[in-house]
Amino acid sequence: MKHSSIPSARSVVQHCKAKGLENVVISPGSRNAPLTIGFSEDPFFKCFSIVDERCAGFFALGIAQQIRRPVVLVCTSGSALLNYYPAIAEAFYSDIPLVVISADRPAYKVDIGDGQTIRQDRVFDRHIGYSANLRQDISHSTERISYYAPQWLTGGSVDRLQQEVLTFNVQELNKAINIALKERTPVHINIPFEEPLYDVSKAPPVDPELVFNDEESNLEIKMETFWDVWNASERKMILVGVNPPNTIEQQFLDVLAKDPSVVVLTETTSNLHHPNFFPSIDSIIAPVEKLEDNATVFKKLQPDLLFTFGGLIVSKKIKAFLREYRPRHHWHVDSKKALNTFFCLSHHFKMDANAFFRDFVQGIKPISSNYYRQWNALKEHYLEKREAYLNEMPFSDMTVFNHVLKSIPPNYQLQLANSSTVRYAQLFDQDPSVKVYCNRGTSGIDGSTSTAIGASMYHKEPTIFISGDLGFLYDSNGLWNTHIRPDFRIIVVNNGGGGIFRILPGKEDTANFETYFETVHGLNAKNLCQMFGISYRSSDNQKSLQVALNDFFNESNKPQLLEVFTPRFTNNKILLGYFDFISSEIINH
Amino acid sequence: MKHSSIPSARSVVQHCKAKGLENVVISPGSRNAPLTIGFSEDPFFKCFSIVDERCAGFFALGIAQQIRRPVVLVCTSGSALLNYYPAIAEAFYSDIPLVVISADRPAYKVDIGDGQTIRQDRVFDRHIGYSANLRQDISHSTERISYYAPQWLTGGSVDRLQQEVLTFNVQELNKAINIALKERTPVHINIPFEEPLYDVSKAPPVDPELVFNDEESNLEIKMETFWDVWNASERKMILVGVNPPNTIEQQFLDVLAKDPSVVVLTETTSNLHHPNFFPSIDSIIAPVEKLEDNATVFKKLQPDLLFTFGGLIVSKKIKAFLREYRPRHHWHVDSKKALNTFFCLSHHFKMDANAFFRDFVQGIKPISSNYYRQWNALKEHYLEKREAYLNEMPFSDMTVFNHVLKSIPPNYQLQLANSSTVRYAQLFDQDPSVKVYCNRGTSGIDGSTSTAIGASMYHKEPTIFISGDLGFLYDSNGLWNTHIRPDFRIIVVNNGGGGIFRILPGKEDTANFETYFETVHGLNAKNLCQMFGISYRSSDNQKSLQVALNDFFNESNKPQLLEVFTPRFTNNKILLGYFDFISSEIINH
Repeated sequence: MKHSSIPSARSVVQHCKAKGLENVVISPGSRNAPLTIGFSEDPFFKCFSIVDERCAGFFALGIAQQIRRPVVLVCTSGSALLNYYPAIAEAFYSDIPLVVISADRPAYKVDIGDGQTIRQDRVFDRHIGYSANLRQDISHSTERISYYAPQWLTGGSVDRLQQEVLTFNVQELNKAINIALKERTPVHINIPFEEPLYDVSKAPPVDPELVFNDEESNLEIKMETFWDVWNASERKMILVGVNPPNTIEQQFLDVLAKDPSVVVLTETTSNLHHPNFFPSIDSIIAPVEKLEDNATVFKKLQPDLLFTFGGLIVSKKIKAFLREYRPRHHWHVDSKKALNTFFCLSHHFKMDANAFFRDFVQGIKPISSNYYRQWNALKEHYLEKREAYLNEMPFSDMTVFNHVLKSIPPNYQLQLANSSTVRYAQLFDQDPSVKVYCNRGTSGIDGSTSTAIGASMYHKEPTIFISGDLGFLYDSNGLWNTHIRPDFRIIVVNNGGGGIFRILPGKEDTANFETYFETVHGLNAKNLCQMFGISYRSSDNQKSLQVALNDFFNESNKPQLLEVFTPRFTNNKILLGYFDFISSEIINH
Repeated sequence: MKHSSIPSARSVVQHCKAKGLENVVISPGSRNAPLTIGFSEDPFFKCFSIVDERCAGFFALGIAQQIRRPVVLVCTSGSALLNYYPAIAEAFYSDIPLVVISADRPAYKVDIGDGQTIRQDRVFDRHIGYSANLRQDISHSTERISYYAPQWLTGGSVDRLQQEVLTFNVQELNKAINIALKERTPVHINIPFEEPLYDVSKAPPVDPELVFNDEESNLEIKMETFWDVWNASERKMILVGVNPPNTIEQQFLDVLAKDPSVVVLTETTSNLHHPNFFPSIDSIIAPVEKLEDNATVFKKLQPDLLFTFGGLIVSKKIKAFLREYRPRHHWHVDSKKALNTFFCLSHHFKMDANAFFRDFVQGIKPISSNYYRQWNALKEHYLEKREAYLNEMPFSDMTVFNHVLKSIPPNYQLQLANSSTVRYAQLFDQDPSVKVYCNRGTSGIDGSTSTAIGASMYHKEPTIFISGDLGFLYDSNGLWNTHIRPDFRIIVVNNGGGGIFRILPGKEDTANFETYFETVHGLNAKNLCQMFGISYRSSDNQKSLQVALNDFFNESNKPQLLEVFTPRFTNNKILLGYFDFISSEIINH
């Protein structure tokens, strides 16, 4: 097996291997050749080649989202690295581990006018778990160093100095990778290389010096006080953010679902299901908002105790409601962090949610309350109204989501783009066997396609990705990827621009609105599909949509994309009409 | 005229207007609505709508490169901003002014789980001229502030506090914009907005409070010492980096060109021409490198005095030569900075190059020397050899550049992509009336198309953009732009991957090399052209290339792209063969 002849490059590769980071996404370059050689020549690693670093970053994030272990990113020096930043910020806020390794020029070549050279060290400091800036090998380039930067060599022999470099680098490498592993966060390792970059050696690599994380200290949590508060509260709300499937045992959920003093509010991205739970939160809150005397009803819905787990919340309405009608207690459980989303956080259980419930359910008991009943009345109201509305509404974005979501085969992975896509999906019920994901860390439109393709890599069942047109066009380079599975499916809901801006309050029908907010375009996905070898078909009405969906999920030898054109000017009216319709007659309940 | 009802948004717009920043590139979003309304409703501003912020950044950079004044960028909150970073780094190293304005959420909503929210302030700190983090208006949102962050209101009346906010913001705005204007650098202004975002008012805006830069203090430079050194040096080299056309008066260049002790080395991006100058530096240095006893010749070519101006140098060979054979003096003239590119910088004339020459030529005199003659012998050798080689070589990348560069009509703007494109172009003579540009600040492949389109906006003559396939595919979203002029021309030299990696030392013909270095793909530009309304044609041989070029520059109602397919496996051999061929018989000179 070939290795780079540069000691620190070998050390980086060996440490990634020893710590089990087997997935490596490589973007082309020359400065990173020592790393590319090291990773690609060792069959331990599964390497992926992605040219556009912005897409590479999100592709790696998609893999890491699924395998829940760090994925390695490797790029060359210069602005290449900066293109990772959108994916790094998403990973940072979504607690997804990435190990970003950037090849750099030697330090003495930074800011002196060399090409592809920027200040790479600490460049992601606002959104990174750790930044390791490794040192350059001495032995590898003594001659050049003594020539350009002789001061580096004062104070010791070359061998001793190189030993110091290696020791420093090994410490930093261990620290960075351990943080990624333990804290589920992106980390950045920057490593300078002197030319020659392509030299290889067959000598066996030195053994990595591994430092492992300290064992998690099992803090004993005194549950008694919390049990007392819980058991005394007649109105308890559990609200679940982004949450991977199968992380909470069903028996705990059943306990909560049967308690009349508990409501469990879920989102599409919560991946939790029970007939007594409350999905489609907006369909409950919106009608209440519209009531003249909404305060009376909201006060009845207000929880005493709010219990949250999972990542970020999609629904703006539940955030606004809980910020206005704050609970007395807000507890959050997560092994890493607790966000004060509602400005009333009172306790952080710093542990895994499932482990928490295992302890917690032992001391709680259902109590008599009409809290669940109050929420459920509103749920039954919208269920009935929604059915009527869906049966009568004209063809629009909403029709597409209604039909597409129903057509997804069991156990599929569903990847949703931002931002109207995930918001529409929230309005409908979802087959509990379908696993739902969306980049809600920064909620950007910039990498949804790449993320979905990455996430499909190791998922046993096929993946369907739904996107709006702007997000899809934005990340069109996501399709420049030779790894797309033939069972990958894409639905593009093309309403000719940023349809979400028509829904937001304040929009107007002016040329400026169309140009700078909606950004109307006449583009479609057909040419991109031809370019990247994806089967394409389109639809612009309900009948052809249903026909297309009939065999859309059948086995095929190429990935498939279905583009659905919806009416730009009526989508927003139909969506707002939905909320009006389900709000009617609510006063009678 | 409508304005946003948010005072600070109005202040930002008014200050941009008062300081004459008329070009504004807006990416869609909701949080930035107060800015979008302000800029797009005022006919003073020329607004451009670009969805993909990475492209928007480079498009703005292209405009600023040409007009040599700051261009404003406006985006919404969240990861949108991060997509500007590649263009910001390029602007930072190329001394191109940009005023990046990002809308932000109120500070109390950062890191508490709101969507599209990151740590925007100071996010570009490694590569930015200034970061202004404006304060949120108090009067606009007193109710919310008193609710969520009552501590903000202690210590003063709302009116007084709002006055403090406005005063602070005006100071920061002036400072940021002045730095962009004076230091030719990107600056970042971050501004938080509370909802409602779309409210407008017709009230006339408050007058901006303008602070202007201090006048440049005209430091008297004592030229005498420098004249003495110059006039005593028998071997003077002038080396010019990236330099806009028409910045140095021809009379000064003529003085230098006629001095036998002076050689003027130019690059394609120097935009300086004289029959006695030395373009195609690599064609001179490469043959000497190959000599067994190259030290003897290099010592004859070594300057005593190196004088540089302009931006970054493309040629790696001249950098290596001058680092090895260092001049006794290295002077650099630039009103802003001097890079120690050759590790021997001895003086920085901190002034405009043309102004410098106006003073400087008054005290210099030509002296007898064989320095020019020695360089010129090598130049004449390669000119003769090059002609012979070009006439005989098989069709390849090099053929394409030979024919394309000759075909460019006079006065065109020529935009070159990175990296093999600009390197190939360096090997040929260029019509002096053609103005040449390339992003050499970071030398990235990430935004060349967008830059070229931006640069074509205000250029009187048409623009031709030449790119390799990887760079072109990377920035394909650059074509998602409704502003492309019908006289815009694109040549894509498609060698099926990163052909440059075949030229670099160390490559091997293995599957890993093709996958991770060359990143071979079977893609072409045809579908992208169909998608974005660009006329397309292609060629894969010399004859059809010449036919295509015959009418390629004729007037047309659509922009046009010519894709030339070249042989992947022979390009590098033909290029390396060129250097071998021009190196033969050199010993006789």
